[in-house]
Amino acid sequence: MTDLYGFDLATAVVPRPGDPSAYDAELHEGWRMHKAVNGGLLMALAGRVLAAELGGSSQGHPDPFAISAYYMSAALPGPATVRTETLKRGRSLSTGVASILQGGEERLRVMATYGDLDSHDASDVRTSATPPEMPPPEECAGREAAPPDFLKQAPILDRIDLRLDPATAGWTVGRPTGRGLVQGWFRLPDGREPDLLLLLLAADALPPTSFDFGIAGWTPTLELTVHVRAKPAPGWLRLKQSTRNFAHGYLEEDAEVWDSAGRLVAQSRQLARVLMPTQ
Amino acid sequence: MTDLYGFDLATAVVPRPGDPSAYDAELHEGWRMHKAVNGGLLMALAGRVLAAELGGSSQGHPDPFAISAYYMSAALPGPATVRTETLKRGRSLSTGVASILQGGEERLRVMATYGDLDSHDASDVRTSATPPEMPPPEECAGREAAPPDFLKQAPILDRIDLRLDPATAGWTVGRPTGRGLVQGWFRLPDGREPDLLLLLLAADALPPTSFDFGIAGWTPTLELTVHVRAKPAPGWLRLKQSTRNFAHGYLEEDAEVWDSAGRLVAQSRQLARVLMPTQ
Repeated sequence: MTDLYGFDLATAVVPRPGDPSAYDAELHEGWRMHKAVNGGLLMALAGRVLAAELGGSSQGHPDPFAISAYYMSAALPGPATVRTETLKRGRSLSTGVASILQGGEERLRVMATYGDLDSHDASDVRTSATPPEMPPPEECAGREAAPPDFLKQAPILDRIDLRLDPATAGWTVGRPTGRGLVQGWFRLPDGREPDLLLLLLAADALPPTSFDFGIAGWTPTLELTVHVRAKPAPGWLRLKQSTRNFAHGYLEEDAEVWDSAGRLVAQSRQLARVLMPTQ
Repeated sequence: MTDLYGFDLATAVVPRPGDPSAYDAELHEGWRMHKAVNGGLLMALAGRVLAAELGGSSQGHPDPFAISAYYMSAALPGPATVRTETLKRGRSLSTGVASILQGGEERLRVMATYGDLDSHDASDVRTSATPPEMPPPEECAGREAAPPDFLKQAPILDRIDLRLDPATAGWTVGRPTGRGLVQGWFRLPDGREPDLLLLLLAADALPPTSFDFGIAGWTPTLELTVHVRAKPAPGWLRLKQSTRNFAHGYLEEDAEVWDSAGRLVAQSRQLARVLMPTQ
């Protein structure tokens, strides 16, 4: 079944005639959480434009290696403009920026360095990180576990298939652990397999770790940086998000994305502000 | 004793008359490692310009909360231009960019969100991270432990007082541990106490973790992001840098900066390329 709001349609852009640095996009209602469009989807949209900008030629660099987004105001469903600029074209790496604007207001700006993951020696790996351990997807908590009132505010949960590890989902039933850890399985429900752009969405797909601290408020992202380290194999992705330093109303969230072959395919970190719910 | 190449002089800028977005700077020979000026010093220089740009007024935001640098080419000793632009001035946060150029070529671009750390409730801290354990500075390895040939190429080691934990410095005597961990003490030798700008330097001051993997090559940084979380107390800073994923010729380096009061004052992550030395 084709999802009319699926990931590829939601990140599609149309080059603006006569203006080679501008693209038109439509931010889809279906990717909302509360009133704002998801930050990972916005990064994937900008990342797709930068892949075209930096990777267009045969000598190009189509793959994001490091990509950072600074979020300035909430992006709302509706039309948007993406503007891009190449800062440097190098032999093995290129760097560029992309902005997403609505009504003349810049919602976020993305800066990134792209390369070619296929040009790498894939044999020299000395990774001490290990994949998160969790029960199989069918024993984890999917959208059916969320209260109907919450689902109404979160249409994004119809666009992704997210299964939370019950050991890190105690907060859904009023029992946060206080560890600042959330992990789970992730895929697209329409069967579209993961690629590098989907990793940018996956890196920001888990619920905020503040929930596991027992804080139900909103946690807008100031800054999100993703390092894409390898091309993902088909199948489920495993996500782990943790916080070690919740202080002065801000927290960092470190996310890892593992593919079905057991490889660490992306690492991300964000700084988010914790807005305490009004009592 | 005043160091003529000290940190404050090395990050000083002069506003260019008639061009409010441009500043002139001099990148000091004394902050070189091999031929290139240190990346953390460059971030601190850009961070100082952004503090003036975003924090100038009484309603301003003088403190870096999240700051990202994308390095495009090696910055060399000599004159440089810093160009800055405000992207958004908000009520509690402001975002801007700064570029450092030499001879018309952009060496790095920095994007950052600034706020006011004094406006925060400092009481709500739920940090699970713990400070790195290491022997006192006088039992750690300072510059006197480095070979004279190496010191000639690294004048930056005269500008900072860095004392490596012997347990993570085995690589200096041909015994890397393979864990990807380096930690040590950090201060400025002229007695200047730490502040927020110095944290940006400290976050990139340790030797690369690749040394602890037994790789002696150069590791240029693609991207460095620092989250500044609290104002540091006077005294020594403790630094810890670790790598969990060394793959395909790239590695991430996570750094923590702890102050003398035992607070985690900054967290950083960078993506660096590992250039294998020619055999």
